[in-house]
Amino acid sequence: MNTISTTELRVRYAETDQMGVAYHAHYLVWCDVARTQYLREHGASYRELEAGGLRLAVVDAQLRYRSPARFDDDIRVQCWVRDVATRKVVFGYLIERAADRRRLATAQTGLIALDSSYALSAIPAAIRAALVPIPDPVRL
Amino acid sequence: MNTISTTELRVRYAETDQMGVAYHAHYLVWCDVARTQYLREHGASYRELEAGGLRLAVVDAQLRYRSPARFDDDIRVQCWVRDVATRKVVFGYLIERAADRRRLATAQTGLIALDSSYALSAIPAAIRAALVPIPDPVRL
Amino acid sequence: MNTISTTELRVRYAETDQMGVAYHAHYLVWCDVARTQYLREHGASYRELEAGGLRLAVVDAQLRYRSPARFDDDIRVQCWVRDVATRKVVFGYLIERAADRRRLATAQTGLIALDSSYALSAIPAAIRAALVPIPDPVRL
Amino acid sequence: MNTISTTELRVRYAETDQMGVAYHAHYLVWCDVARTQYLREHGASYRELEAGGLRLAVVDAQLRYRSPARFDDDIRVQCWVRDVATRKVVFGYLIERAADRRRLATAQTGLIALDSSYALSAIPAAIRAALVPIPDPVRL
Repeated sequence: MNTISTTELRVRYAETDQMGVAYHAHYLVWCDVARTQYLREHGASYRELEAGGLRLAVVDAQLRYRSPARFDDDIRVQCWVRDVATRKVVFGYLIERAADRRRLATAQTGLIALDSSYALSAIPAAIRAALVPIPDPVRL
Repeated sequence: MNTISTTELRVRYAETDQMGVAYHAHYLVWCDVARTQYLREHGASYRELEAGGLRLAVVDAQLRYRSPARFDDDIRVQCWVRDVATRKVVFGYLIERAADRRRLATAQTGLIALDSSYALSAIPAAIRAALVPIPDPVRL
Repeated sequence: MNTISTTELRVRYAETDQMGVAYHAHYLVWCDVARTQYLREHGASYRELEAGGLRLAVVDAQLRYRSPARFDDDIRVQCWVRDVATRKVVFGYLIERAADRRRLATAQTGLIALDSSYALSAIPAAIRAALVPIPDPVRL
Repeated sequence: MNTISTTELRVRYAETDQMGVAYHAHYLVWCDVARTQYLREHGASYRELEAGGLRLAVVDAQLRYRSPARFDDDIRVQCWVRDVATRKVVFGYLIERAADRRRLATAQTGLIALDSSYALSAIPAAIRAALVPIPDPVRL
């Protein structure tokens, strides 16, 4: 099982803005898609987690935009676990253009576990086992 | 109580695309905002409806885009009830630029009532009383 | 070359709403993604069309929502040309859940050609050749 | 002229997700709306800046989510300048629920100036005059 998950996306016209590039808020959506993929690849479908009463809610986010993504670009989002604690996990992201591996952005998001009544909760052991932190493959 | 509700919005940068105009899918969001406003003005807060177990789900939509909305434009969305039946209500919309009343788009959406288990439901009498159909003020 | 293009998408968490289903405006985005794919498969990359000064602007849209799409659903969007004229083309869409081919929505959008100064323009012959209308494979 | 700009928004249904709260990426959109308002109030309409060839592109963002925003909540976004340099300006944001001033999120975004050919540019003196940094009114 890879500790870094890779997700491919193509920039949608709806994601562009009148500056002619992908609007910056959508990068958080791409990180979310990549995080969902990471969980799926590590045996923890987020859909099933939610159905089982667990939620992972984003509590902080940091992004550095390095080069613009453009309409129809194939982009690659790498996602890994930076850090994990009893109730919080921090994911790191590297967003590149697939064609030339140009670095478009780096990001991190912190998520906390909530139970079905939205109370702060410990991350269940089975999920936590899937969240193995690694050293950052790139500088965020 | 006016049978036509008026909502004002300003086009967000996030709503533009690289054609330099508001992306067409956002008009459905603006219609939704206007419909929520219509309900509020007619004593039927959608938030409270949902809290009470009722949902209104969009089942069809038609839009005609006549002139582009642009970033920072103040737009005005008029909303009214075109038709109402036991389980379905059809809203009409006129989207204009506020500055010169230029017609940007017209639209209609049909919504059905669902109960808290998402089963098709009759629109409660109290809500239905708020939904008084009028002849279209403009041609859709 | 197939006259019907097929695009696969997975519903993003960002696309859900608090009704627990994909928010209705996103279906227009999915249609756009499918239309871009149709053009690419027919030798008419929309990115290159735009770079060459042509734009296709949505002037009308009709959608029928039949069954909700949910988070993480794999969906399949089929796209074809319903009708083409000198300056306008109408695309049809069928959105299904991939797992069981359940019909989620049908739609059509009309687009007009604009030149680089946003004036109404004829669809260039090379593009028009790629736009071969077929009878609707399903009732819209 | 106030050094802190205040913008009011109401959370849209389209902005909710199936967790029943506003999806986290939309907070960046709200910050953008507030920043546009800040500029307008300080005599620097972003629309006119862009028409004049200047662009302000987001190069970094940090958000802390403290309490969820919900559908139909009236929220208030305060925006100020944290720091300004020759080619970069950093804005701070405080997002509160209007009803009870509950703190929903804090954020900052860094923006760089680009000229009409998207080259890094100095912030014009006239704009820079409008960007007066103040000490953070709250801890970000």
